[in-house]
Amino acid sequence: MSRRTPIIAITIGDPSGVGPEIAVKALAERRRKVPVDGQFAAMLVGDIRIIERARTLFAPGLATREIDEPGEAVASDHVYVFDVPSEQVDVDDPVSSQGTAAAGTAAYDALQAATQLALAGEVDAVVTAPLNKEALSLAGHLGVGHTELLADFCGVARAEVAMMLASDRLKIAHVSTHVPLRTAIETLSTERIVTVGRLAGAAVARSIGRQPVIAVAGVNPHAGEAGLFGREDLDIIQPAVRALVEEGWNATGPVAPDTVFARAVAGAFDVVIAMYHDQGHIPAKLIGFHDTVNVTLGLPIVRVSVDHGTAYDIAWQGQADAANMAVAVGVAVRMMED
Amino acid sequence: MSRRTPIIAITIGDPSGVGPEIAVKALAERRRKVPVDGQFAAMLVGDIRIIERARTLFAPGLATREIDEPGEAVASDHVYVFDVPSEQVDVDDPVSSQGTAAAGTAAYDALQAATQLALAGEVDAVVTAPLNKEALSLAGHLGVGHTELLADFCGVARAEVAMMLASDRLKIAHVSTHVPLRTAIETLSTERIVTVGRLAGAAVARSIGRQPVIAVAGVNPHAGEAGLFGREDLDIIQPAVRALVEEGWNATGPVAPDTVFARAVAGAFDVVIAMYHDQGHIPAKLIGFHDTVNVTLGLPIVRVSVDHGTAYDIAWQGQADAANMAVAVGVAVRMMED
Repeated sequence: MSRRTPIIAITIGDPSGVGPEIAVKALAERRRKVPVDGQFAAMLVGDIRIIERARTLFAPGLATREIDEPGEAVASDHVYVFDVPSEQVDVDDPVSSQGTAAAGTAAYDALQAATQLALAGEVDAVVTAPLNKEALSLAGHLGVGHTELLADFCGVARAEVAMMLASDRLKIAHVSTHVPLRTAIETLSTERIVTVGRLAGAAVARSIGRQPVIAVAGVNPHAGEAGLFGREDLDIIQPAVRALVEEGWNATGPVAPDTVFARAVAGAFDVVIAMYHDQGHIPAKLIGFHDTVNVTLGLPIVRVSVDHGTAYDIAWQGQADAANMAVAVGVAVRMMED
Repeated sequence: MSRRTPIIAITIGDPSGVGPEIAVKALAERRRKVPVDGQFAAMLVGDIRIIERARTLFAPGLATREIDEPGEAVASDHVYVFDVPSEQVDVDDPVSSQGTAAAGTAAYDALQAATQLALAGEVDAVVTAPLNKEALSLAGHLGVGHTELLADFCGVARAEVAMMLASDRLKIAHVSTHVPLRTAIETLSTERIVTVGRLAGAAVARSIGRQPVIAVAGVNPHAGEAGLFGREDLDIIQPAVRALVEEGWNATGPVAPDTVFARAVAGAFDVVIAMYHDQGHIPAKLIGFHDTVNVTLGLPIVRVSVDHGTAYDIAWQGQADAANMAVAVGVAVRMMED
């Protein structure tokens, strides 16, 4: 890390969602808890008119200030903004009950700007508010979410990044995420499982300061019960576990999917490699609905996200809870220190 | 129910597993907690030599007594046994580190005997100790578990029964169970989802005394996010929810799989219809590892099972915890009263 105060760029996500609200609320919250000369500075990335609207409504005690250089973000009584103008969103009334192309474009542009700042070393981490995949899709970015876009912006192959859901009690890295479940099974590969195992192993090792115990989940009921319920556990997952062990990782599996998470929570494993989106997301949301955040593994930048959606139905009403955003910022701070 | 004391038949399951141990331990435990003239009588079903061995080791305070008629089971200081001789198992040393054809046959025969007693009205419920599907498979019963065998023994089509995992906090009925995940997706059908919804709705209504709120889980990430990640949620699940609502059920869905269980635990739903084994088993085991039991819906008999496996590695060592078996017996007693 550089010697200056570390700076976090926080995207406001989809402007019709809860992103702008939780972003300014998290800054206001921070001001009450962290002294001005805190360990990090924060800057919002998005359309300044939308951010100003959110600040007026949800963080009236702060002042908005546009900055051109992230290094100008120094005081915690300000909402510093790196303006990414959105020409299509109605900035006076961004509310929408569903995804729109305009909001999808705005979320895309803010994410791209924040990523470029991080790649250029001007910020030290990117924390993201939620975007909506239907809105992204309407904006012409089909079948992608944050993780895929970040890989693209960073020039990393999508196959080389992975999504990890992390809380203090449970860490889960995903072999696949936003694809149909059928596709997740059909495209399961030994190579990809090994890649995700390595990425998760390295990230968790940094976070806990020792070699982690990695559990690789099976994909079929009871991990296939010796081939009775599907061959993938034997033919695809088992070789991946062997390869990870040969590389020196403390990996085990395929472990029966229905018990691996309970065992991890009980302390048997430091991280679980999940074979598909819901295998990992169901336990993560059940164990830590509010304190689980989304960390992207394999990028050249630090990136953490909230682990909830745009919640269009409650956006811009003052009801959104910024706790998960605050946790995401906290995790990013710890990762910048590692 | 008949006017005599209700009788529960408890199978000992796979004799190489923890079944015999937890069955006799549950009876010993019961004796300490329930007066002799309790609300129910219990009888073990399995090879009497194996049961006697388990009783000697794990419940020396009880006496074993063979009975020919379940009605003879009256005192709680006895282990009443309906003997189902097992010619192939080494009754002096049933320990095995893996499933064997002999143990599979013994488990099969005991289940069949208990089911026939229930169908004949001689017992009022069947509670089952774990069996092992590999052992069953070696014994010639391929790709089946308790649920499928019970359907066959009762003369009910397998498509008309369903497995529900139930604890006080979370009830989950499964559209499919012991099949490869790929098969579970490929065979998902509107008709089957409606069947399971009806069965679960009726069972939970009896248990809670009112119309339950039924959540039907989606199958793809975010329930497909409007078709972006797979069509099954729109084409198969949504019509099933509509059909259930048209029949008068308070059903909703497809609900995003990664949040539906957390919402159910928070009180939003009384029962969740899970689309595949692990979608339901992961949250069930995470929320209630010890107090979740397995109830078979759609049978003409009451049947409850423990929700854990044979655990060959700890069997016959006195380490097995009979708590889940005790919960299963308690749930069966409540179901007999409904």
